[in-house]
Amino acid sequence: MYTFNRQGLYAAAVCALALLFAPGLSPTAQRPAPATAKPDSPQINKELSQIAQAAIESDYAWRRLAHLTNNIGPRLSGSPQAAKAVEYVAEELRRLGLEIRLEKVTVPHWVRGVEVAELTQFPGQAPQTTQKIVLTALGGSVATPAEGLTAEVVVVNDFDQLTALGREKVAGKIVLFNERFDLRMAAQGEAEEAYSRAVVYRGGGAIAAARLGAVASLIRSVGTASYRLPHTGAMYYADDAPKIPAAAVTAEDADLMAHLAAEGAIRLRLTLTPQTLPDVQSFNVVADLKGSEHPEQIVIVSGHLDSWDLGTGAIDDGAGVAVAMQTAQLLKQLRLAPKRTIRVIAWMNEENGLAGGRAYAIDHAVELPNHVAAIESDLGAGHPLGFKALANDQALAQLKHVSAALQDIGATLMRRVTDSPGIDLIPTAATGVPIFGLWQDTRAYFHYHHTAADTLDKVNPHELAENAAAMAVLAYAIANLPEPLRR
Amino acid sequence: MYTFNRQGLYAAAVCALALLFAPGLSPTAQRPAPATAKPDSPQINKELSQIAQAAIESDYAWRRLAHLTNNIGPRLSGSPQAAKAVEYVAEELRRLGLEIRLEKVTVPHWVRGVEVAELTQFPGQAPQTTQKIVLTALGGSVATPAEGLTAEVVVVNDFDQLTALGREKVAGKIVLFNERFDLRMAAQGEAEEAYSRAVVYRGGGAIAAARLGAVASLIRSVGTASYRLPHTGAMYYADDAPKIPAAAVTAEDADLMAHLAAEGAIRLRLTLTPQTLPDVQSFNVVADLKGSEHPEQIVIVSGHLDSWDLGTGAIDDGAGVAVAMQTAQLLKQLRLAPKRTIRVIAWMNEENGLAGGRAYAIDHAVELPNHVAAIESDLGAGHPLGFKALANDQALAQLKHVSAALQDIGATLMRRVTDSPGIDLIPTAATGVPIFGLWQDTRAYFHYHHTAADTLDKVNPHELAENAAAMAVLAYAIANLPEPLRR
Repeated sequence: MYTFNRQGLYAAAVCALALLFAPGLSPTAQRPAPATAKPDSPQINKELSQIAQAAIESDYAWRRLAHLTNNIGPRLSGSPQAAKAVEYVAEELRRLGLEIRLEKVTVPHWVRGVEVAELTQFPGQAPQTTQKIVLTALGGSVATPAEGLTAEVVVVNDFDQLTALGREKVAGKIVLFNERFDLRMAAQGEAEEAYSRAVVYRGGGAIAAARLGAVASLIRSVGTASYRLPHTGAMYYADDAPKIPAAAVTAEDADLMAHLAAEGAIRLRLTLTPQTLPDVQSFNVVADLKGSEHPEQIVIVSGHLDSWDLGTGAIDDGAGVAVAMQTAQLLKQLRLAPKRTIRVIAWMNEENGLAGGRAYAIDHAVELPNHVAAIESDLGAGHPLGFKALANDQALAQLKHVSAALQDIGATLMRRVTDSPGIDLIPTAATGVPIFGLWQDTRAYFHYHHTAADTLDKVNPHELAENAAAMAVLAYAIANLPEPLRR
Repeated sequence: MYTFNRQGLYAAAVCALALLFAPGLSPTAQRPAPATAKPDSPQINKELSQIAQAAIESDYAWRRLAHLTNNIGPRLSGSPQAAKAVEYVAEELRRLGLEIRLEKVTVPHWVRGVEVAELTQFPGQAPQTTQKIVLTALGGSVATPAEGLTAEVVVVNDFDQLTALGREKVAGKIVLFNERFDLRMAAQGEAEEAYSRAVVYRGGGAIAAARLGAVASLIRSVGTASYRLPHTGAMYYADDAPKIPAAAVTAEDADLMAHLAAEGAIRLRLTLTPQTLPDVQSFNVVADLKGSEHPEQIVIVSGHLDSWDLGTGAIDDGAGVAVAMQTAQLLKQLRLAPKRTIRVIAWMNEENGLAGGRAYAIDHAVELPNHVAAIESDLGAGHPLGFKALANDQALAQLKHVSAALQDIGATLMRRVTDSPGIDLIPTAATGVPIFGLWQDTRAYFHYHHTAADTLDKVNPHELAENAAAMAVLAYAIANLPEPLRR
């Protein structure tokens, strides 16, 4: 998961899609008569309970997640592992009896290289010594010269401080944005909000620094734990600013540089050798469990199959793919036939391009009016609290029995939000489709997010099963509503 | 701090010292008449309270620790940083007005090189991919060939499993000892005991593996947190076994290899290029605050100045050195003259040789009968609970007023132990000198111990000040006892 930057790259794409579909699909034009049928029934409530119970007793999602992370490994877009993961997920869903399509997505192919840095000058330095700086290139960064570059580091806390320094004090230097993640907010359950505030330096730091003549841009890693572990993630360049190398240093190294720079000049030798190779053709995996009454009406369950390259993409977002797969598995196991089609999607390229989400909205433009809802899990695999919903009150009123069915596992909350709670679903959301995101306890999520420590052991099997229950119950309930979800 | 292996390298040295001093220094021979004087007085109790209060209000230790870690950095024996740290501590203690001696210690000079590894074969592998294995060489390890070595990995949980496999299944392979740190014990305040159990594979794994023909030895990192962070530490070779390269993989990588090896053969390419350079002459920093009545009687306060090379040695053991320095600073600040000499020692080479502790016991053999006590802090800088004491009941009875003076900061416990609670003090302890170790809350200590994340931010300034209070109060109380501490 990465944060949707409202001022960012995708705004244009989203707006274009919104305009494209607006004439036929505006809420006003499409809104049906108020619902009259009762959304639940004893039968459906019994089935939802069966689904939740079966999920909790199953290790299906866990086993698929173990294979994705341990046997296949990191799955950055364009990599052989991403291609292997597409094959694997398609084959597993085919074995469940679903109709599979691999839908083409053209993705970037960025590969990490050497990434080393050391302070070559700092106050109090022992003769002939340097201090190692632990960092990782941000995704999409250009390289330094192969032999590295060496420059003085200026440390700023935010864009305002950078602006105040001005070109005179920034040109020729390396800028370190030392913005801190608000740990108090994270501990109190507002980790995503805190993340959104801190991550703007990851996305936009290199642009701001380059505009003042900096030769490289560093950020303090956007994360909530301090184990000398850098957090990568997407960064952007602007057409009107030079492309300069960009990396994230660990919290400890940011502290170190801030401490030393306050005492005197510090210089850093920085070597990053990432490469952007030619684009690669990849795929969204799209698998349909056909509806028995309204096969043309679609409920999406999804996660994203690509991951960053440092870890093995367990919490971000192998877990999301695994629980989406399990929605289909549970219905097959219980021989429950949804009235509407449940479509499992493993998205490609969420992390560094959103190509999968965009391609889907374009390729399925004609179908989108028949998309009743789309669900994604992309906040890890912590205990599910419920859902975040980009949907209206009437729609939520149709789903009260979902919360009832998830009462035993505690996933009863339904919070209305104003942005798409699933990044891959932004282009689909722009056409008015109601969107649901699994809402996990994220207090530990940003400890590991986008790091080498995003590995299988970070997922609790029972909590993963709870997430599978939540996604399957919501999807089946929506697929079996007497009337489509309100828009 | 590393664990004293009772069967290990130092047993011989310790025994030799014990025998050397036994004739003159056995407890029986040296025991004085039972104490008659009351150990405390209103005046001394007032002074102890003043010391504790002044420590809590001071940032002296914190500032010295910041300089040692941030400005000087990692301080492995033989490194330029270790030499710089000797200079710095000596100069700071000289500024306090102490008598300084740099006492020669010959130390090993091991330098870390490249350390990379990847699984080249494993079940489910995507074509043309490997899986990265994060590891770090153990201190003292020999190198692999420069181009690395590649071999199948056999995973065992303990020595018994290795033995059961036998030479046939081990020869030519890489052994991974997947012994797990007991996290439950660690969380319940028994982290050191759990560490002692797990660390035997770090010390002796390479010997056991080599005896069965293995080509390299890996251990699961000995630590309590999982952030893809390897923990280094000392390892040993035996004269009767080949020297094979040895490294610690992260907990995650141990899990990964165990998972994959259970499904089929896995092969690892391992490259380690450490070097053992010629020995270096280094120093213990020894600084005396002369006693006003019994200058020949000595109370040692100490920590070790060397650290591992991955982090900057904040909790292990810059903190110990800083609080020992502050004992002298506080007495100077408060114009309190101890009756006995308080000797501040910054030990060299605790981590990989104990050369400093051994040299001291030999060089000061004549003085040791006049050593009333020796104190070390080498369990981090967590909140102090009190002390671990290698001392008899009569001695502890002389120190009840210490606990009273430390009541407000909660450092009131005095636990009798049977091994020296300060590793550097083992050779001194062998002569019968009562030994005290600061006893910190270590629940988080092994998260960071011997890793790149042992950095300044892991130390809470207030808790560091509490440790300074505890060390200074104990030292001053012992230095001012009417009669020497019982042996």
